[in-house]
Amino acid sequence: MATDYDRNNIFAKILRGEAPCFKVFEDETTLAFMDVMPQSEGHVLVVPKEDAAQIFELSAPAALACMQTVQRLSLAVRAALEPTGLIVAQFNGSDAGQTVPHVHFHIIPRWKSEPLLPHARVPADPAKLEAIARKIRAQLQ
Amino acid sequence: MATDYDRNNIFAKILRGEAPCFKVFEDETTLAFMDVMPQSEGHVLVVPKEDAAQIFELSAPAALACMQTVQRLSLAVRAALEPTGLIVAQFNGSDAGQTVPHVHFHIIPRWKSEPLLPHARVPADPAKLEAIARKIRAQLQ
Repeated sequence: MATDYDRNNIFAKILRGEAPCFKVFEDETTLAFMDVMPQSEGHVLVVPKEDAAQIFELSAPAALACMQTVQRLSLAVRAALEPTGLIVAQFNGSDAGQTVPHVHFHIIPRWKSEPLLPHARVPADPAKLEAIARKIRAQLQ
Repeated sequence: MATDYDRNNIFAKILRGEAPCFKVFEDETTLAFMDVMPQSEGHVLVVPKEDAAQIFELSAPAALACMQTVQRLSLAVRAALEPTGLIVAQFNGSDAGQTVPHVHFHIIPRWKSEPLLPHARVPADPAKLEAIARKIRAQLQ
């Protein structure tokens, strides 16, 4: 189940600045950006800057840094979008639904009447993603 | 979406020792025990000892303590049961699937061929839960 780290995964490229993202937050140890194939409006990903494919390989300090950013972003997403529920999820291994082999925490706002979209399936409109990212960033200032 | 804390929820009773649980781990700030209506074999819950219904109300130190225990338990569950995947999930609000109003992190092992059971629906055999708890505890020693 543990995997060697693949430095060419898309999140590694984003962290190196070789691929774009709709950034919402960054500190020394973590980065948060919009999921481009969101399961709901406001679906954000939090990743550690450390090379780790799964939670098993993540250092304890990096795991704690992720949690700190996840909590901070959960509050910002709630303030920005006023969902009626919010899911935090982290998948390890393709059998658990992991699609990119770099540790990432999903923050997925929920609304009573809206079904959850399928995971990593439907690309969102970039202009809409940027507008939502802006709303979330405004709550972090 | 935020809720007042209900001191009569089942996890509050477990934390006060007024209700039983299949305990797998405890430290000063967190408790881990088997989910009695598991979504898969080895489904463990991690709860903070702090009164908090959702991630929004959890103190930062309690959130970090949860993460530390979640990572520790994820490693123990993997070592004990050798799943091919593992989900970490935390639900806030009934619209997000939260069924008990005390913050809890799900650790759900996954196996390729086995479908995920519905959430909080089917009670497991207590003898089986205790046998699995024993296996996981053995990995924590």
